[in-house]
Amino acid sequence: MVSGRTSRSSGADHRLEELGIQLPPPPTPFGSYVEVLQTGNLLYLSGMLPVVGHKPKYLGRLGKELNAEDGRDAAHTAGLSALAAVKQYLGSLDKVTRVVRLGIFIATAGDFFDQPRVADAVSDLFASIFGPEKPAVRLVIGVASLPLGMPIELEVILEVAG
Amino acid sequence: MVSGRTSRSSGADHRLEELGIQLPPPPTPFGSYVEVLQTGNLLYLSGMLPVVGHKPKYLGRLGKELNAEDGRDAAHTAGLSALAAVKQYLGSLDKVTRVVRLGIFIATAGDFFDQPRVADAVSDLFASIFGPEKPAVRLVIGVASLPLGMPIELEVILEVAG
Amino acid sequence: MVSGRTSRSSGADHRLEELGIQLPPPPTPFGSYVEVLQTGNLLYLSGMLPVVGHKPKYLGRLGKELNAEDGRDAAHTAGLSALAAVKQYLGSLDKVTRVVRLGIFIATAGDFFDQPRVADAVSDLFASIFGPEKPAVRLVIGVASLPLGMPIELEVILEVAG
Repeated sequence: MVSGRTSRSSGADHRLEELGIQLPPPPTPFGSYVEVLQTGNLLYLSGMLPVVGHKPKYLGRLGKELNAEDGRDAAHTAGLSALAAVKQYLGSLDKVTRVVRLGIFIATAGDFFDQPRVADAVSDLFASIFGPEKPAVRLVIGVASLPLGMPIELEVILEVAG
Repeated sequence: MVSGRTSRSSGADHRLEELGIQLPPPPTPFGSYVEVLQTGNLLYLSGMLPVVGHKPKYLGRLGKELNAEDGRDAAHTAGLSALAAVKQYLGSLDKVTRVVRLGIFIATAGDFFDQPRVADAVSDLFASIFGPEKPAVRLVIGVASLPLGMPIELEVILEVAG
Repeated sequence: MVSGRTSRSSGADHRLEELGIQLPPPPTPFGSYVEVLQTGNLLYLSGMLPVVGHKPKYLGRLGKELNAEDGRDAAHTAGLSALAAVKQYLGSLDKVTRVVRLGIFIATAGDFFDQPRVADAVSDLFASIFGPEKPAVRLVIGVASLPLGMPIELEVILEVAG
């Protein structure tokens, strides 16, 4: 019972550590905007991209230059950027009460339909950090192109404690 | 005056019945997410698709494999899924005070520009249920592809009573 | 100190005047929706398009029929429409406390990657009106087509005073 309570109270920062996940440096803007902004209890993020140190980790479209596995890794990379941006903004991921909405924009040539599997790579990452009992709602959209030619962009809205 | 008052107080559930609209079974996820989530007074929905019993009712793109009338029916079908998801989550559509935003993503080969008429199919459905005096704001976007090759995906944010 | 205080208290309406910006007539819907809607402290706008007097100022896609400079002017034009819509709805832009999120959807043939520069045209417009110290978060997405064949559509969410 004590261990159950401990387990329940262990927050997102602790789970990050347990999972051995090293967050990358927080993303920095490619233009005139900020990466994170809070209004009321909602935290809005800018479009999160698969970058490492401000450089694209992947360029290309799924179903053309890249395959579904590349897409899953790109989505995971963008998800880590999102976590790093939120941790920098809030100081601790423990202040996040849940992911509200996750949008996954996937650059495709129009003939790639395995979007849910790509999107699950970041849904599963967030579930492992914020708790599988609180999944977000999700939008998955295949688009023509994304900034600088990257294959994935995430829309993220989170809820924070009042 | 009494009938006017009665008419005003008749809620969305009642209008659904009056219009003879049978809601389909609520949609179930294609991946690691939930269909509906409330934060504060806002209800966020996952991307609603033109499915019947977890199967796509339409596959293809507008202006290519499908025409505008198919698109209107697909948008209407996705709108019914949205209503079914909300009714399941809230118990009653009467708790919805208004549709805040409706996004209509339309899969096209890039040469289909009659998006507003397709989008109106779902705007008009929601207006008939939640009241024509409270239209939502709207985004309409033509995209390269949508999950499993379906032609329409809806973004829906609703406001619920406090 | 007095002049500093005056400068800080000069609101968005005043800055509009100082910059000599004439707002166009507020946009009117192309379908069954409204242009602006408030829920809680958030103001949601419909997709803002590069229109002048309900007519498209530009038709075509970036990287194909139009270039980046056209895109910047189209984004700026859509941004002015957004300001006009908000001013009509609220009476004064001074009631806006900040832009929360700006989404820039860009119609492309899939091979246009200079999106951040196009998006900055509207980010910079909003910064000049609402204050450079309060940038919004931003999503930039290249899409297949937009209503009536226009090259730019803006998603805008603002925060208003409680």
